[in-house]
Amino acid sequence: MRRLLLSAIILSLVIITNAQSKIVVFQSDFGLKDGAVSAMKGVAMGVSPDLKLYDLTHEIPAYNIWEGAYRLMQTVPYWPEGTVFVSVVDPGVGTSRKSVVAKTKTGQYIVTPDNGTLTLIAETLGIAELREIDEAVNRRKNSEKSYTFHGRDVYAYTGARLASGVISYEQVGKALPAEPVMISYQKATLEGKVIRGNIPVLDIQYGNVWTNIGADLFNQWKLRPGDKLQVRIFNNKQKVYEGVMPYVETFGAVARGKPLAYLNSLLQLSFALNMDSFANVHHVSSGSAWSVEVSRAN
Amino acid sequence: MRRLLLSAIILSLVIITNAQSKIVVFQSDFGLKDGAVSAMKGVAMGVSPDLKLYDLTHEIPAYNIWEGAYRLMQTVPYWPEGTVFVSVVDPGVGTSRKSVVAKTKTGQYIVTPDNGTLTLIAETLGIAELREIDEAVNRRKNSEKSYTFHGRDVYAYTGARLASGVISYEQVGKALPAEPVMISYQKATLEGKVIRGNIPVLDIQYGNVWTNIGADLFNQWKLRPGDKLQVRIFNNKQKVYEGVMPYVETFGAVARGKPLAYLNSLLQLSFALNMDSFANVHHVSSGSAWSVEVSRAN
Amino acid sequence: MRRLLLSAIILSLVIITNAQSKIVVFQSDFGLKDGAVSAMKGVAMGVSPDLKLYDLTHEIPAYNIWEGAYRLMQTVPYWPEGTVFVSVVDPGVGTSRKSVVAKTKTGQYIVTPDNGTLTLIAETLGIAELREIDEAVNRRKNSEKSYTFHGRDVYAYTGARLASGVISYEQVGKALPAEPVMISYQKATLEGKVIRGNIPVLDIQYGNVWTNIGADLFNQWKLRPGDKLQVRIFNNKQKVYEGVMPYVETFGAVARGKPLAYLNSLLQLSFALNMDSFANVHHVSSGSAWSVEVSRAN
Repeated sequence: MRRLLLSAIILSLVIITNAQSKIVVFQSDFGLKDGAVSAMKGVAMGVSPDLKLYDLTHEIPAYNIWEGAYRLMQTVPYWPEGTVFVSVVDPGVGTSRKSVVAKTKTGQYIVTPDNGTLTLIAETLGIAELREIDEAVNRRKNSEKSYTFHGRDVYAYTGARLASGVISYEQVGKALPAEPVMISYQKATLEGKVIRGNIPVLDIQYGNVWTNIGADLFNQWKLRPGDKLQVRIFNNKQKVYEGVMPYVETFGAVARGKPLAYLNSLLQLSFALNMDSFANVHHVSSGSAWSVEVSRAN
Repeated sequence: MRRLLLSAIILSLVIITNAQSKIVVFQSDFGLKDGAVSAMKGVAMGVSPDLKLYDLTHEIPAYNIWEGAYRLMQTVPYWPEGTVFVSVVDPGVGTSRKSVVAKTKTGQYIVTPDNGTLTLIAETLGIAELREIDEAVNRRKNSEKSYTFHGRDVYAYTGARLASGVISYEQVGKALPAEPVMISYQKATLEGKVIRGNIPVLDIQYGNVWTNIGADLFNQWKLRPGDKLQVRIFNNKQKVYEGVMPYVETFGAVARGKPLAYLNSLLQLSFALNMDSFANVHHVSSGSAWSVEVSRAN
Repeated sequence: MRRLLLSAIILSLVIITNAQSKIVVFQSDFGLKDGAVSAMKGVAMGVSPDLKLYDLTHEIPAYNIWEGAYRLMQTVPYWPEGTVFVSVVDPGVGTSRKSVVAKTKTGQYIVTPDNGTLTLIAETLGIAELREIDEAVNRRKNSEKSYTFHGRDVYAYTGARLASGVISYEQVGKALPAEPVMISYQKATLEGKVIRGNIPVLDIQYGNVWTNIGADLFNQWKLRPGDKLQVRIFNNKQKVYEGVMPYVETFGAVARGKPLAYLNSLLQLSFALNMDSFANVHHVSSGSAWSVEVSRAN
């Protein structure tokens, strides 16, 4: 009788504690027009229907590892400890690139090909541990004849097994040095009276230009709202934009259509037009070839 | 022993009753290409992993408060009592517009900037109560330095706390008069032999033209399927379309490519071409500048 | 006392077993810009907030039943037994086409108009049973005046009731012969030294060309990686592409921009350019008018 009672209590507690994690977040360059993302989620539901499946984005431009890395940096910190990300931007599918699961220093997991996707997470949150997926164990049954959909057969499957507790992190596979493949890119610097940086991504929906210049660096200038900045934007060495704009805390602080500099939600220096698209109007794009120079204009 | 037993039962019941609500539905003009929506959901999962997170749409045209208002009217009534909507179409972010949580007369909640987004919900379901978000309490910890992402740090956070029961509706903040900011627009009217109205939105995917003329008004004509209507469509005062079409109950009642009038899923008078796009073929769009005149053609 | 204890245990078990199914997956040609998909999900949540709602895709081209059929074939097999799909691609809404729920031979359910959407599922997984939805019972209350949104009022509602256990499969409505409406299309054949087939869909995001020629047929040639194929692609009878390419297991086996043949994740013969779009470069599309001829090139 007591044993039955304890079983009931333990069952209840198991349900409650399980509900504390079990989150899988998917990212890919697959788009949402076909069934690829849904097949990945179906495999995850087959591992455990208790999982909660969400999306980061599936609109990463095809093969754009850099943008995949950026979107992870932008969102992983806001998800709770224990969340498992499955990121599949994998131009090298079928080559010798490794399949890994990283554990961040803040306790989230990222299942991904080790092709540079972890670059920005490694530099910001930090990688605590890295393990190579042992496909002898962590591969969907009967998928051996299929060569080209690792996203479904290995990554989604392994992510679901880890998030649901079917395997522990150790059971993913052998430990690697916590040093993922890194993409090199221009860092933000303050030299003399000039801050330089690059444009990792655009704020696509609004056409705002985001830089990699963080508040810690930028705030060394101790600007106050309304102070003016001289901004130059280059594509390779060619100047694409030059202008003066105020540093403000709210878009509404400048007239409609006027430029402004602000710290975005990631606390990085960004440029915008109030109620218009800076990127479209001034033909600015993003990537490793794009850089900015900022100085004070008084 | 009895106490243990009761605990087990209560635990079970808590799990069951909690499962009755805990739904958050997100709407924004952020698009799905970057990490903004995912960051909002991560914050919500951090508040409670038991929440069920869904989307209305994130494809509201940038800054288009009117369309955000319309999409809420179109969908809120179909979600159960207790559902919490988080709607972030916020051109005035950082200005003095208030952040509020409305409770509809049918028991759903809407977290939104008070900028007109509640207009059509107020006119249809009705607003039972309105409260201003107290950011001293209902703002994500450590987000004070960030000025521009209220959607994540205030709206998603508050919505998740309300939906999960961390706070009650009263704990959102102080009560306001139940009178949100309203956008003025042309109402549907029957004068003499003419019904007038406007075109709040298109049925985008199919190119059907939806009006704000409801079945209650339209049915005063007591039409029968097959009866003919004279339809004129204006952009400001300029006539864009004029034609005669039958009122039908099914698209298949007219030949392919032919026009028809019908009551859409919201029971509003609408115009379509069977298997083609009325909006594209006749260059019709939507918004406050667009109006229609309908009369009987016999 | 014992009865209470048993109740607690049964409650716990009910929660656990219920968690084994309760999955609804939606597909439509509605797009995600308006509230139609969200209204369907709201209705489902109103039936039972314990349901887990996911999407296949809502980007099926308007009225394209064939593509809806293909996306189901591509994904249904990866979802667990008991999953309920709600597929709404319904150009004949309001006509005499039947509303049905199919049960596959592998135990998934598909709620759909019987208009050809089940064609490819019937040919692959197989249809075990077919029932016509009894709208006298399985239609949302107070929706009788609405003629045009069966997706919400009948299909989502019935799918949610079935997935949540409110109704059994038998309570959907009367049994029909397990023979859904079928779309005719060209089958894959091996005649002499030529394999023929059609191009049911493109791998849109990457521009790869997928055929309906399965591994079982193709492997009769016992090719080894690197063996060459002569490929011709026709739109109706007109030749659109002719070229020689190797059969490979990984995209990286050919130089950037070069053509290759491979078995895709569904183990069907496909054609691609490494790191480029075969469909765009060679103007290849998909549908019943497109066919391919493949022979060995040595």
